[in-house]
Amino acid sequence: MATLPFTRPRCLLPLFLGLFQGALLLFFALFVTYDEPSAQVEDANLVANQVYSTFPFFQDIQVMLVVGLGLLLTFLPRYGFSALTHNFLLLNFSMQWALVLQGLIHHFHHGQIHLDLHKLLIAEFAAVTVLISVGAILGRTSPCQLLVMATCEVPVYLASEWVIVSCLGVLDVGGTITIHVFSCYFGLGVSKALFWAGQKPLHPKETPTPRSDLMSLVGMLILWVFWPSFVAVLCQAGHAQHRAILNTLLAMSASAVTTVVASSLLERDGKLSPGHLQNGSLAGGVAIGAVADMAMPPVAALALGSLSATACVLGFRFLTPLLGRKLGLQDQCGIHNLHGLPGILGGAASAVAILVAPKDTPGSHFSQLSPAGGNASEVVGEQRGDGGVSRQALCQAAGLAVAIGVSLVAGLFTGAALRLPCLARPPERLCFEDSLYFKFQGQDESVGPGSTTEEGALALKERV
Amino acid sequence: MATLPFTRPRCLLPLFLGLFQGALLLFFALFVTYDEPSAQVEDANLVANQVYSTFPFFQDIQVMLVVGLGLLLTFLPRYGFSALTHNFLLLNFSMQWALVLQGLIHHFHHGQIHLDLHKLLIAEFAAVTVLISVGAILGRTSPCQLLVMATCEVPVYLASEWVIVSCLGVLDVGGTITIHVFSCYFGLGVSKALFWAGQKPLHPKETPTPRSDLMSLVGMLILWVFWPSFVAVLCQAGHAQHRAILNTLLAMSASAVTTVVASSLLERDGKLSPGHLQNGSLAGGVAIGAVADMAMPPVAALALGSLSATACVLGFRFLTPLLGRKLGLQDQCGIHNLHGLPGILGGAASAVAILVAPKDTPGSHFSQLSPAGGNASEVVGEQRGDGGVSRQALCQAAGLAVAIGVSLVAGLFTGAALRLPCLARPPERLCFEDSLYFKFQGQDESVGPGSTTEEGALALKERV
Amino acid sequence: MATLPFTRPRCLLPLFLGLFQGALLLFFALFVTYDEPSAQVEDANLVANQVYSTFPFFQDIQVMLVVGLGLLLTFLPRYGFSALTHNFLLLNFSMQWALVLQGLIHHFHHGQIHLDLHKLLIAEFAAVTVLISVGAILGRTSPCQLLVMATCEVPVYLASEWVIVSCLGVLDVGGTITIHVFSCYFGLGVSKALFWAGQKPLHPKETPTPRSDLMSLVGMLILWVFWPSFVAVLCQAGHAQHRAILNTLLAMSASAVTTVVASSLLERDGKLSPGHLQNGSLAGGVAIGAVADMAMPPVAALALGSLSATACVLGFRFLTPLLGRKLGLQDQCGIHNLHGLPGILGGAASAVAILVAPKDTPGSHFSQLSPAGGNASEVVGEQRGDGGVSRQALCQAAGLAVAIGVSLVAGLFTGAALRLPCLARPPERLCFEDSLYFKFQGQDESVGPGSTTEEGALALKERV
Repeated sequence: MATLPFTRPRCLLPLFLGLFQGALLLFFALFVTYDEPSAQVEDANLVANQVYSTFPFFQDIQVMLVVGLGLLLTFLPRYGFSALTHNFLLLNFSMQWALVLQGLIHHFHHGQIHLDLHKLLIAEFAAVTVLISVGAILGRTSPCQLLVMATCEVPVYLASEWVIVSCLGVLDVGGTITIHVFSCYFGLGVSKALFWAGQKPLHPKETPTPRSDLMSLVGMLILWVFWPSFVAVLCQAGHAQHRAILNTLLAMSASAVTTVVASSLLERDGKLSPGHLQNGSLAGGVAIGAVADMAMPPVAALALGSLSATACVLGFRFLTPLLGRKLGLQDQCGIHNLHGLPGILGGAASAVAILVAPKDTPGSHFSQLSPAGGNASEVVGEQRGDGGVSRQALCQAAGLAVAIGVSLVAGLFTGAALRLPCLARPPERLCFEDSLYFKFQGQDESVGPGSTTEEGALALKERV
Repeated sequence: MATLPFTRPRCLLPLFLGLFQGALLLFFALFVTYDEPSAQVEDANLVANQVYSTFPFFQDIQVMLVVGLGLLLTFLPRYGFSALTHNFLLLNFSMQWALVLQGLIHHFHHGQIHLDLHKLLIAEFAAVTVLISVGAILGRTSPCQLLVMATCEVPVYLASEWVIVSCLGVLDVGGTITIHVFSCYFGLGVSKALFWAGQKPLHPKETPTPRSDLMSLVGMLILWVFWPSFVAVLCQAGHAQHRAILNTLLAMSASAVTTVVASSLLERDGKLSPGHLQNGSLAGGVAIGAVADMAMPPVAALALGSLSATACVLGFRFLTPLLGRKLGLQDQCGIHNLHGLPGILGGAASAVAILVAPKDTPGSHFSQLSPAGGNASEVVGEQRGDGGVSRQALCQAAGLAVAIGVSLVAGLFTGAALRLPCLARPPERLCFEDSLYFKFQGQDESVGPGSTTEEGALALKERV
Repeated sequence: MATLPFTRPRCLLPLFLGLFQGALLLFFALFVTYDEPSAQVEDANLVANQVYSTFPFFQDIQVMLVVGLGLLLTFLPRYGFSALTHNFLLLNFSMQWALVLQGLIHHFHHGQIHLDLHKLLIAEFAAVTVLISVGAILGRTSPCQLLVMATCEVPVYLASEWVIVSCLGVLDVGGTITIHVFSCYFGLGVSKALFWAGQKPLHPKETPTPRSDLMSLVGMLILWVFWPSFVAVLCQAGHAQHRAILNTLLAMSASAVTTVVASSLLERDGKLSPGHLQNGSLAGGVAIGAVADMAMPPVAALALGSLSATACVLGFRFLTPLLGRKLGLQDQCGIHNLHGLPGILGGAASAVAILVAPKDTPGSHFSQLSPAGGNASEVVGEQRGDGGVSRQALCQAAGLAVAIGVSLVAGLFTGAALRLPCLARPPERLCFEDSLYFKFQGQDESVGPGSTTEEGALALKERV
């Protein structure tokens, strides 16, 4: 049985991906087209303006996901190449898969699907959930397992997003509830079901080196810089988008400073923990998403940023070890601290912001993350006359509950599916090792720099 | 003779560059000016809109060339500093040189040359050809040789681009034929003429380490993210540009997934090769350039991306070793696999796309990469009534042939010129070594980390 | 006394930052709000256009400061994590502090402060001065010292900027005088007063490794790419901004090539110095700021770029060692060569450019870096009839003198304040060491890779 997991992937990974690419081509050939360009000049100007207003945001988000998030995951010193590559592969696979599903769900009854930049952006947002969830199980999983996870997660996300945004009318322009909270609990569910036996002992290759911590820090900084684009891209142009950018900048700035305070107070000797910095500085961006375009004073953004950074650092210091001990929960990158706790804080803040908002503000802050177009906001706007406000606040809470509930259950089932032996989960002693999946030149002599002879022998034996 | 190559560059490099900078200053002082700003408000708005619509694309392309391409070349573990610096120097030198030549050719008879962002962009595109061609001979050449190569390549490129785009009316908005195919075969020609004796044995410093492979992967990811800007920057605003962005995104996404499939099938144990990932994921971007703004269905972009990634990986696995054995062709970075094969595929695809395109589409997809302004497209549009379509397809094929033929011949002559002893080609045992060109602090004690005593002694002796 | 500096920061850093965050929240709660969105469509379009025209520039500048400048400072091989983190913390702290001060000074008498992207940008510019000044004392200071320095520098900068731009009417769109010259001499003043005793002997951890030099080079390249955004963001849209972008591109391109020439001529064996490349290539961007939007021919931008790069490289080669020997001046990153000399050159160039400019040019080149709005330029425009031109040139010189004088004096006082023992300046033998401020996992066994047992023992003893 020991050799089984390392002979299978040879066929399984290309088979799975190859079939998927074939199906994708078929689907696109049959159903997908571009908008017919009309000869009218006004129409061309409209499209040009849409490109100029969306494309820079889109590029920023691509940098975040491909370079920033990828580098953030390279804190495992001998797993950096895998982290970057798997992140990249999953982004592309999930985006394509989301395009197919969205096409089938939303547009199939209209016949031809007209692809545009906005639809690609929505598909990219679906892919983000997969990239976040992977953080819980990074390093102890095979690419096949990750692809199966993506295959399961994207449809559940689309369904959950439809329920939360379109049915409940939840306001969540930056994806705090629909993306961050959902993907966090999905990932934790997968981790629990996959590593059922309980907390793993610390793996010798799991400890970051100063150099891998530095790369990861660079990834965090890239994410930090471009986060406002992620939050504001789907906002209504004008005041709402301006406010979303400013709120995100303020929240992230407060997070950065508060993280230093909290980490310094919690660590021995007043030193700072690299892990806290790599995550806490981003917590404000996660939390602000649900309220970024609402009519609230700037101080609320600062306070939310500080609060979520504090929650994130406290989570790393106390909650993660506790969950590990009590529930046997493995959370490799601490996604519960970066996405779960700040996400719940942001969701709660959105309910509070709606309750205390001045009654006579124009409706511009009721824009939302709706791929359908956004008439839900007008419905909400009309309800605001009497009991609409408290009802909307309840909806926000309900949306949070739906995101957590659906994702946890779906994650547990998905994690159970990932236990299938044919998916080739690597044995514990070969985890966190690039050379298991990549053929570096000159690696025949040794498994990697610094590996002991024993490990090399094990690895070679495994591959026979 | 052995010491000759290492005493010469001391004078030659600064002499060459210094004279060039002097000539550049003189040329600019005599002939170049900015547009006279008129006092009209409409004119100012026009310029402002041009800046807002072009500058973000321009910045993306700068990031690609300076950071992305630079990092992609750092896969040689002890040559990273040289790769980044030579790439940066060549970009600036070639851009300035292209500005001078363009000014002389296109604008001299109008008197003063009015510099604007668009002219800088066209000069930058000329510089790209040099940066690509260098890939064939990276690590075994001196900076002087590279500068001489740039001096030869830029005028040939400008002439070839003029023939292909302005005379033949080839449609190639993303530079597939004019830039990628041209620079690939120019580089291979240089390599063949320079290393005439045949394939070099593997140099001990040529093997990437996991760390240098990681840096190179980051470079690939940066290129991947910003590629749509490169393809779409010169498109007509509106539908054509929107379509070019979408097509490029689809092609690159398909490339990324297909590369994993192909590499996994071709390597032993189903592992992935870092080199395949670093190149194959970009192949779709190379191929899509010629057809990005044409009226073709989205599935064609996906198919072209998959096909070119497959060709790229197969090229690395089979064609590069074959060309090395049979023709003694040295191709250090595998530019034939990344730029040559996908470029030819893209050129062929453009002919096919024109043949099968619906007859009654408005002319928006006949935009083109023409620094002159673009009246060739209208000529083509008029020809389309009867035999224009097949004539245009023939033109695409002719353009491809011209690009290959001109570049190969010019490359062979340039490579022969680079054999001049005064250009100080480094001897084989000192290749791929940063410390030959850079004075790192504390390097007096040793040539570099990990170098053997013998190498150090050789190097010291060489420098006497 | 030896243990004192390492028990204090445990409380001082979080105490200082925590109190500041509390005060910031209070200030924002009381005084800061967003613009009330009006229901008018025209107003929304105006805001949307402002976002689209400013935000891409703003993001570019954020990348420069957070990623580019951070990486540039990682040339100290064992201090990279500190350099990146302190840079990031100081940016956020200084920006928040500048927001508070600007609010108090400029807007308090209007009651509520209306925050917008432009005000954040101005605050970010104030923060840049701190990040530059830090370069003089990098690695030999504690985070507390850096924060106190930022606390002192920001108000002095705001006052000096008000005098130079609003009172003297100096034209300096890219911050050459107000930002670069000011922060350079402030940093040198701090360094002189802090390390009064004289030049330090070379610390063993101060020498860059090829790897840390490579990271620093990547940082330089990122700064180089995005520099035009920094210079042009506050320009008047249209011709002035277009010209500022082009001038900056030309100056930086000339700098890059000239740096290679100068470094190659000055170093033994014709090799290039990594330090020269990392700094000289940016010198053109520093110098061009004061003249970027003026009506001058393109050749002037090229010449200024070449000249400032030469000055920068000569400064590294001759002036820095001289200042160290004669004045005992410590300048860790060589900010005098990158910001001081090119800044003075740029200031002088702005006076010359005004004197030789054609008389009848429209006033568009008299835009300026004024947070107040920019009516100074009109005043200047009116003066230009007769003696206005020479008076404006005198003003430029006066502005330069004010920037140097004010910053030097304020820097000396600030440096003296940083000598307070409670600020925990690290002892010499523990300088340039990440593990003094960061708790890397697995560092209990050793202080860091490569540290001798003696150092480890010292560090442990220190921490008791």
